[in-house]
Amino acid sequence: MNKYHQVTPAVLTALQAIVGEKYVYTDRDKCIPYECDEGVGKEYIHMPEAVVLPADAAQTAAIMRLANRERIPVVPRGAGTGLEFGAVVNEFGGIILSTERMNRIVEIDAERLYMVVEPGVVTAVLQEEAEKQGLLYAGDPCSGDSCCIGGNAATNAGGNRAVRYGTTRDQIYSIEVVTPTGEITTFGSRLKKVSTGYPLEKIIIGSEGTLGIITKLTLRLVPLPQHTAHILAVFPSVDTALSLVTALPKEGIEVTCLEFMDHEVIRVVGQYLDEKQPYADQNGNYMIIQLDGKSEADLDDGCIAVDEVCRQCGAMEVFAADAAKVWKVRKVFTEASAAECPVAAMEDFVVPPDQLKELLDQLQAVGRTQHISFRGVSHAGDGNLHLDVLRRGFTEEESQEKVEAFEDTAYRIVYSLGGRISGEHGIGQKRKKWLARYTDPVALQLMKAVKKAFDPNGILNPGKLFDME
Amino acid sequence: MNKYHQVTPAVLTALQAIVGEKYVYTDRDKCIPYECDEGVGKEYIHMPEAVVLPADAAQTAAIMRLANRERIPVVPRGAGTGLEFGAVVNEFGGIILSTERMNRIVEIDAERLYMVVEPGVVTAVLQEEAEKQGLLYAGDPCSGDSCCIGGNAATNAGGNRAVRYGTTRDQIYSIEVVTPTGEITTFGSRLKKVSTGYPLEKIIIGSEGTLGIITKLTLRLVPLPQHTAHILAVFPSVDTALSLVTALPKEGIEVTCLEFMDHEVIRVVGQYLDEKQPYADQNGNYMIIQLDGKSEADLDDGCIAVDEVCRQCGAMEVFAADAAKVWKVRKVFTEASAAECPVAAMEDFVVPPDQLKELLDQLQAVGRTQHISFRGVSHAGDGNLHLDVLRRGFTEEESQEKVEAFEDTAYRIVYSLGGRISGEHGIGQKRKKWLARYTDPVALQLMKAVKKAFDPNGILNPGKLFDME
Repeated sequence: MNKYHQVTPAVLTALQAIVGEKYVYTDRDKCIPYECDEGVGKEYIHMPEAVVLPADAAQTAAIMRLANRERIPVVPRGAGTGLEFGAVVNEFGGIILSTERMNRIVEIDAERLYMVVEPGVVTAVLQEEAEKQGLLYAGDPCSGDSCCIGGNAATNAGGNRAVRYGTTRDQIYSIEVVTPTGEITTFGSRLKKVSTGYPLEKIIIGSEGTLGIITKLTLRLVPLPQHTAHILAVFPSVDTALSLVTALPKEGIEVTCLEFMDHEVIRVVGQYLDEKQPYADQNGNYMIIQLDGKSEADLDDGCIAVDEVCRQCGAMEVFAADAAKVWKVRKVFTEASAAECPVAAMEDFVVPPDQLKELLDQLQAVGRTQHISFRGVSHAGDGNLHLDVLRRGFTEEESQEKVEAFEDTAYRIVYSLGGRISGEHGIGQKRKKWLARYTDPVALQLMKAVKKAFDPNGILNPGKLFDME
Repeated sequence: MNKYHQVTPAVLTALQAIVGEKYVYTDRDKCIPYECDEGVGKEYIHMPEAVVLPADAAQTAAIMRLANRERIPVVPRGAGTGLEFGAVVNEFGGIILSTERMNRIVEIDAERLYMVVEPGVVTAVLQEEAEKQGLLYAGDPCSGDSCCIGGNAATNAGGNRAVRYGTTRDQIYSIEVVTPTGEITTFGSRLKKVSTGYPLEKIIIGSEGTLGIITKLTLRLVPLPQHTAHILAVFPSVDTALSLVTALPKEGIEVTCLEFMDHEVIRVVGQYLDEKQPYADQNGNYMIIQLDGKSEADLDDGCIAVDEVCRQCGAMEVFAADAAKVWKVRKVFTEASAAECPVAAMEDFVVPPDQLKELLDQLQAVGRTQHISFRGVSHAGDGNLHLDVLRRGFTEEESQEKVEAFEDTAYRIVYSLGGRISGEHGIGQKRKKWLARYTDPVALQLMKAVKKAFDPNGILNPGKLFDME
């Protein structure tokens, strides 16, 4: 039984009174863009009863008070670039609360190294604004050109630079939050350390819009690195390439990015770009390394050290790479992969980086047994493996069953290696079955108890991450 | 009305059955060491009804199940080196659960850079064990010789190296936890990134033993820096010295430690050690800087850069310092200060580092108005100011009232500058009045709701951080 209520004409009138008539969508045409995200899974496409676009925290709070009183589900949504259908309405119905109008950069303080932004700012836009002042916002999801910072916070997005700078959570000093019951508060503060009560911002970030709606963020900035090198190291095997992952930190070498692409991926990308990639015909496996230095001399020393470690690990060749060229190869992967063969599922496994080799070995065995083809790229430095499961050898109709069998086995392996379902995409609706299956029941029960503490009526993004009893 | 029950002979028998007779203390002599911590405040000294020393998580869980059933408060305690009476029984009575027997280093993995320890391991001991394998455990509270890692996690301890490496929370991959209802689970994992449910370890760490009892910790290690310099920069004024705090990060210089001592502190320490300190007779103010380098050349470059920035900020002289000598001056402060004048209160203010100057200015004005003398040292790099309020010009009896008036004003200033009550000592019992006064009510209410979610009967360390309704 659905404990939630529908959006009535009276509720629509109340919403219009809060945000203005033109910012409440109910027309099918205007709602269609909000019925899905960028993930794979037709069964999750769901039309919202209404889409509401508040201008600020006060309007957001008024919407939440109304929804909480009327028991109407509210699904917060940024740019809709998620992959797990976390920002899409589900069987409970309800409204999409889009943050797209809250898209101001409020302040950049170049002296004190922080910026204050609203959740609807596109990540690349705030990166560029920071860069104009010689500063780096270090969060760097691959979808930076289209995703927005509120969504980055909601999923604790990672990306290429997470190896060095950490994930989105690590970039955030504080967040203004509207609670599920419609109150406005701030968690965190612009501090380097603090021990004054529970740091609830740490769990709101990454909660995929289930604990509160973020309406403002204070972000950490760092001076823009002035000296950067991009290195392409080519290895004869997956194993030799991945041995670099533990070898670099052991030598105390801090790289900014460490991305892995195997020979099959190189082949597919080369074909898609119609460009011959170095060592593609010798089954070369790539490690793309970005290194930042304090000075030219420091960078040179760093490059020499990286070169040495690569060769010790068995690299066939280590190139000083052209940034645009080498990153294009990495970034075009998703597109190239989908062009060559339909993608049945996109995985976001994460394991301790030293377990990547073992994970890949075991997955290969599963692939052979279950007749599943896949290929993937890896943010290898942080143990995150994006795997495209290909729809090859089975039909679209058979897809769900095949993928499910594969995922069940794969997650069992991932957890046995100390890993988790998702490194940076989140759980949303698609992975909640697996979260329930593989999370320790005591830990899961406490997560639900915390959800209940924040959202007693369960109206904020219900049925995401887990089902409440 | 006390909703809790007393420890009856039947309960004692049950406790003995869990941990063995010799690990349940009720004798006054054996319980006395557990009635206080290292903080100032006679009124908080309180004898526990019993002290229990479990050997492991299973025994800890059995104790919690018993206590939860019988509604008996349990106060987890490490080495008892806290300053805010967080690990001491209060008016609710109950038992101390000491982690001192859980003091094993379970594993050090030098290849994968982590170690697994029990909560009762003394911080310095695990630092030394890591060091023997060429590794650094980067957490570094000033009480490292006596405090234990469980307590570090409970208070999210900081210390000298927090500027570079973060606080204790940043050193922890995962924790095994016994919940208030006596279940055992693990939060977190040995991952560099993850987005798989709520990271509850982030709030258990720093919750001062109110959400769960940590029974095992997996800690992050880094290669031991091979090239370290200690620099003493002497400044003609507090303002010039503190300008270094923003100047260094702006230049992209990452220091490992950045400690501030003003001329009055230098005088008191010099007197105590009976050693003339450089520039003491010219009212010199010190910044002690530790810098780590990847190589001798890198370290030299770093030192030159630091020297330059110090001089731009107005340093009178910049010395390459003898580590033992310069750190002795810093570390002896608490002792030296107490020897010169009784200490009425020890503060742990934290503000954005760029607000330290403003904080000190405003505090000086309060001191003049309220006739309060104080002196302090600062982990300046992270905006943390330890202030000793001196019992000078008033009696011990008047102390409480004087301190209270000062703290009320001081915290108002701290919060107005974006700061918080405690940077690293925590709230315990002593500061909970101020937490209630200065925390946004919505945020405070959510903290209490989370506490309730973890501990429905409120038996784990009740009356710490805040009072439940």
